[in-house]
Amino acid sequence: MNVTLSEFLASSNERVDKVLDSLVPAANVEPRRLHQAIRWSMFAGGKRIRPCIVYAAGETFGADAEFLDRTAAGIEMIHTFSLIHDDLPAMDDDDLRRGRETCHKKFDEATAILAGDALHVMAFQTIAEDSSLCSDLRIRLVADIAAASGTPKGMVAGQQLDLEAEGRTIRIGELENIHSRKTGALISVSARAGAMIGAAADDELAVVQTYADRLGLLFQITDDLLDVTQETATLGKTAGKDVHASKATFPGHFGVEATREMAAKVCREAGDALKELDRETSLLEEIAEMILERSR
Amino acid sequence: MNVTLSEFLASSNERVDKVLDSLVPAANVEPRRLHQAIRWSMFAGGKRIRPCIVYAAGETFGADAEFLDRTAAGIEMIHTFSLIHDDLPAMDDDDLRRGRETCHKKFDEATAILAGDALHVMAFQTIAEDSSLCSDLRIRLVADIAAASGTPKGMVAGQQLDLEAEGRTIRIGELENIHSRKTGALISVSARAGAMIGAAADDELAVVQTYADRLGLLFQITDDLLDVTQETATLGKTAGKDVHASKATFPGHFGVEATREMAAKVCREAGDALKELDRETSLLEEIAEMILERSR
Repeated sequence: MNVTLSEFLASSNERVDKVLDSLVPAANVEPRRLHQAIRWSMFAGGKRIRPCIVYAAGETFGADAEFLDRTAAGIEMIHTFSLIHDDLPAMDDDDLRRGRETCHKKFDEATAILAGDALHVMAFQTIAEDSSLCSDLRIRLVADIAAASGTPKGMVAGQQLDLEAEGRTIRIGELENIHSRKTGALISVSARAGAMIGAAADDELAVVQTYADRLGLLFQITDDLLDVTQETATLGKTAGKDVHASKATFPGHFGVEATREMAAKVCREAGDALKELDRETSLLEEIAEMILERSR
Repeated sequence: MNVTLSEFLASSNERVDKVLDSLVPAANVEPRRLHQAIRWSMFAGGKRIRPCIVYAAGETFGADAEFLDRTAAGIEMIHTFSLIHDDLPAMDDDDLRRGRETCHKKFDEATAILAGDALHVMAFQTIAEDSSLCSDLRIRLVADIAAASGTPKGMVAGQQLDLEAEGRTIRIGELENIHSRKTGALISVSARAGAMIGAAADDELAVVQTYADRLGLLFQITDDLLDVTQETATLGKTAGKDVHASKATFPGHFGVEATREMAAKVCREAGDALKELDRETSLLEEIAEMILERSR
């Protein structure tokens, strides 16, 4: 990560954290336990990659950060909701996340389910109430982000497919299909939303879509690599868990070395897509490289 | 229930069922198990009271039904999501709902959690993509309905407070506070949304709000009465469950007779509020009476 991206990431993190802090009810507002649980998971040292993508894609098309704040925050709320629900005993049954107790371990299952539900809907309220954007744009954002979160093409559908694939041998096409929904859809809509707020033209949005699709795939491949190659302490969650549960992963399918090569190829494809744009795209290229680097 | 309302309810039910059927992915679309679970709970003989309120409030202000369809469907999706999650083992732990297995009993817990999540977000996608309404109106609907579903003033917050109140003795103000969020908020936004689509003026919306608040309270009071006084077979869910779990209920607090009187009083207040409107409001009055009657 070069200095420019590192600075950009630090400033976008600081920015979105402030916005999130202002939007999530305080821990002393009733129901306090619910808001404490939401804050426990929301401010748990997440890397804020999705907000960073929103800000970077927006900046690429000339949008000021103040117009991107609520959309960046809304997408991070959806991401956090998905982590809380995925960690539940009935789902992936994880006790640790980012080095500390998961929401249902720290609080209880009912509170964790409701904290996820509350964050999910808070995302759409946040964007609908974004007075910095015109109604037409807000509606497009709500519709696109809802599709990326739901079914049949979004994150919730991907999690269902992932759970159903446990313990089965699946084809690579099916694996990509699962991951494009479970992880790719929200990463992808982050880039598209930023570009939309920057008033990107339709042909530009199509290019961003291609970039974003590769970025989403790259993210999942490197996430799988991290899970296999790192220790639990470094990762902050129970490492190797996906392999033990016979979950569908890229290294499980191809082996670690071939998966690393695949990641490098997908990263190049993301960068190549951006060459179609008549814009300064180094920030978006560097984000792809940063995601690749984290698995090395 | 007189003939007019009975016919209106039948026709609004038929209408919203068609809309829901066209919006929820078919059972053979992947992930099939997820869509089967959604359909299991969505088409389980629900009374569709919230859609009926949307249509009735809309008609009161002159809106054609085609402009109300998606909002009515979206609110019913949120209601169904809440039932699926409330029935989960970590929440109310119910095996029966409307006379048949709850979603997690018929399928499994993970699928039920995801079916609820999917319906929740589908509601907002449905309204955002409603091309019959202008963007300004759609955004107001998304924002209002999201607030009614979420926290700190909506349904999810109410469910959290309800769970926390189990086994404790609570004051009547607290009981009303829980129920106004858990049940009242979504009932209330149903009336307000219909009136908004009918382009009701701000002072008319304030009257609808008063009516809708009483309607929500009436709904919860009569729901509690039903739970105490009816047999499991008639009710289609495990009767008396709320009392056994020491849940906060009106009959548990006041006794059955005083609760009946309270219901009649709240119903009159709902009707009285409507007198402020210079509109034909008999449909809305009859809905309040229908809700009162069901507990007799």
